[in-house]
Amino acid sequence: MKLLVTNDDGVHAPGLLALAAALGELGEVWVVAPEREQSAQSHAFTLHKPLRVTEVGERRIALSGTPADCSYAAIHGLVPRPDLVVSGINRGANLGSDVHYSGTVAAAREAVLQGVPAIAASLYIRGGQDEMQFERAAAIVRDLASTAIRKGLPDGTLLNVNVPNGDVVHGVRPTVLGRRRYTAQVEERQDPRGRRYVWIGGAPIGDEPIADSDVEWARRDWATVTPLHIDPTARTFLEALDGWL
Amino acid sequence: MKLLVTNDDGVHAPGLLALAAALGELGEVWVVAPEREQSAQSHAFTLHKPLRVTEVGERRIALSGTPADCSYAAIHGLVPRPDLVVSGINRGANLGSDVHYSGTVAAAREAVLQGVPAIAASLYIRGGQDEMQFERAAAIVRDLASTAIRKGLPDGTLLNVNVPNGDVVHGVRPTVLGRRRYTAQVEERQDPRGRRYVWIGGAPIGDEPIADSDVEWARRDWATVTPLHIDPTARTFLEALDGWL
Repeated sequence: MKLLVTNDDGVHAPGLLALAAALGELGEVWVVAPEREQSAQSHAFTLHKPLRVTEVGERRIALSGTPADCSYAAIHGLVPRPDLVVSGINRGANLGSDVHYSGTVAAAREAVLQGVPAIAASLYIRGGQDEMQFERAAAIVRDLASTAIRKGLPDGTLLNVNVPNGDVVHGVRPTVLGRRRYTAQVEERQDPRGRRYVWIGGAPIGDEPIADSDVEWARRDWATVTPLHIDPTARTFLEALDGWL
Repeated sequence: MKLLVTNDDGVHAPGLLALAAALGELGEVWVVAPEREQSAQSHAFTLHKPLRVTEVGERRIALSGTPADCSYAAIHGLVPRPDLVVSGINRGANLGSDVHYSGTVAAAREAVLQGVPAIAASLYIRGGQDEMQFERAAAIVRDLASTAIRKGLPDGTLLNVNVPNGDVVHGVRPTVLGRRRYTAQVEERQDPRGRRYVWIGGAPIGDEPIADSDVEWARRDWATVTPLHIDPTARTFLEALDGWL
């Protein structure tokens, strides 16, 4: 059993180290992860420049690329082909709409696109929490990975896991994707030479109420497991669309 | 009626200009698009540096960011709020799994995440085709946009359109997302100082057979419209997952 660990916080991140250590109980762990932090890189791919390969430890490689680059390169020959890819543990939640922006999730999605089962894992940290409980989260992810190996994930499906960082985790439950709301922020300024620039992106301000959503259960201190499919076709709209065309 | 046009090929791309011209028949068109080409940028966001804003024409702005940045900034105050966002027309298909990598699709997805209906449009170009038929594609997208405005797109749903670039387009039809196969390529080299690097990414080599897929119908010279949902939860797996946990 070979497991690949990657992330978007970079090859030296404590969440990755905790995850790699916990997964060591299940098989041989290889790490291929970005040299540097790659937050909000989403599923970006590096096609137009080469990727620097640096061995930073035993079975542990830093790549000068994105999380999706790491999955792809690891699966296609940089290291022995993994049976399971686990991405994380991200320092910060990837709940609801976050999955579209997250490099952590993209690394897992890329693995599934390349035919290897995958799990993305994140630590849901709230304001005022200084201590990062990556080990507890890693133990939960290890147990889930063990089950996934034994039972097998359905074709085209990855698991997106969020583990709360609080004092208690009540348990682990299946959830659907929620929707987080962010402040809509486009702040316009002028540089010293009078040219315009903007800063974009606001903080989360709330959630839309969706039954059994990951956002909702994470807030109640449950670890959430949301199965995501690589085919987002909106099949329920196909018939109406046929009428349009 | 206000329409926003964006893309990932950059603000000066001929596909964008053709699209903006065609959509001018439906309402007031604003362009906010990346300064430079942003291929394979996926849904990457620029949160850690400011975005330069340059007016390059009337109601036409270049932003030093990604396609998702452009949608976000345009929707949240950089220009008057659009009623519809149309992204493209990309120089090259975005079929099947491509939607996960595509900046063109990400710009439309970001619009839907921000509550504005959206269409992504791409020109399916085959080897040996030198002439780019962006005008014909733009006319097809304009008609679809007109219908979408009239009938309204369902919540959380964007349309991903691919128009073949050949001599004939037989018609427009609803499709599901296919899966393209690419050669798995990780080519390892050494730089002049003996350090390792890799080039990743291969060419498309075929498709998986999926009934009514966009890949299949585009190949038969039909324009394809695939509705995509922003919630990719694999609901059919939820019950089995509950058994696991």
